Amino acid sequence: MGEEPAGRIDPIRETDDAARALARSLIDGARFGALGVRDPETGAPMVSRVAAATTPEGRPVALVSDLSHHTKALKDDPACSLLLGEPGERGDPLTHPRITLQCRARFLRHGEEGHAALRDHYLAQHPKAQLYIDFADFSFAVLDVTEAHLNGGFGKAYRLAPADLGL
Amino acid sequence: MGEEPAGRIDPIRETDDAARALARSLIDGARFGALGVRDPETGAPMVSRVAAATTPEGRPVALVSDLSHHTKALKDDPACSLLLGEPGERGDPLTHPRITLQCRARFLRHGEEGHAALRDHYLAQHPKAQLYIDFADFSFAVLDVTEAHLNGGFGKAYRLAPADLGL
Repeated sequence: MGEEPAGRIDPIRETDDAARALARSLIDGARFGALGVRDPETGAPMVSRVAAATTPEGRPVALVSDLSHHTKALKDDPACSLLLGEPGERGDPLTHPRITLQCRARFLRHGEEGHAALRDHYLAQHPKAQLYIDFADFSFAVLDVTEAHLNGGFGKAYRLAPADLGL
Repeated sequence: MGEEPAGRIDPIRETDDAARALARSLIDGARFGALGVRDPETGAPMVSRVAAATTPEGRPVALVSDLSHHTKALKDDPACSLLLGEPGERGDPLTHPRITLQCRARFLRHGEEGHAALRDHYLAQHPKAQLYIDFADFSFAVLDVTEAHLNGGFGKAYRLAPADLGL
């Protein structure tokens, strides 16, 4: 048997301004993330990489292709999860802060109201996306956050509401 | 409207030895990954970071705590997904190879047959886990792979079976 954990029974801390600021910085600083969807073929969770950015209002947004499995899955069920906050090359990756955003995806396609403005805003964050952002199969999946789980490292877990993220 | 994609209708390529080797190297080289589970409270996908390693047989394995949300979720439903293969600091993250493993988790706890050997094997890959690996709430989640989706960069997608990974 292992040793008893000491004082680790309820790992959720009370949300404070430092937690809110860390959460916001993880969202604003993300270039990519791990998107979890429900596989329409099996119903199982399925995780894939997406390029991540923010809308002018600070919502997370992914640029996705109709050819990809996650886009088909989101059209079947918009409930999804986005993990942001990447460890560096050194140290224990579990000590690096990250945030899990529970979301619902809504699509914004070429020609729809607001697409052109979001395209410009996205390209300012991802200039290399210029190469494919105008392909017909690419659209934005804007992610409306319903809840967030912040992990600032061992023993530093918080459960946040959209209002804690300014959303 | 955007431009038409050219020759991008079926993005899945035929599996070859280079794809198999790339997939294996992504699994063997991973220090951490993004684990997708089904949230028992809502049924929605939920993604969080886990430390990743391999068993002596080459299966992916995560060291998880009973206090974490993903461990509770896996006990409720062992179907899960693990994304491995981390982009570097530079370049478009979507051009960096990554693999999505569709899995079923089974737990191996302190005192159970095989735990001690896996503990030693895990510590050789994650020496810093020495700090917490013996806590009573930590156990291994060995992930039996049922299917894998390899993405070697734009237009380089493969669907792999466990045998392609030597599993």
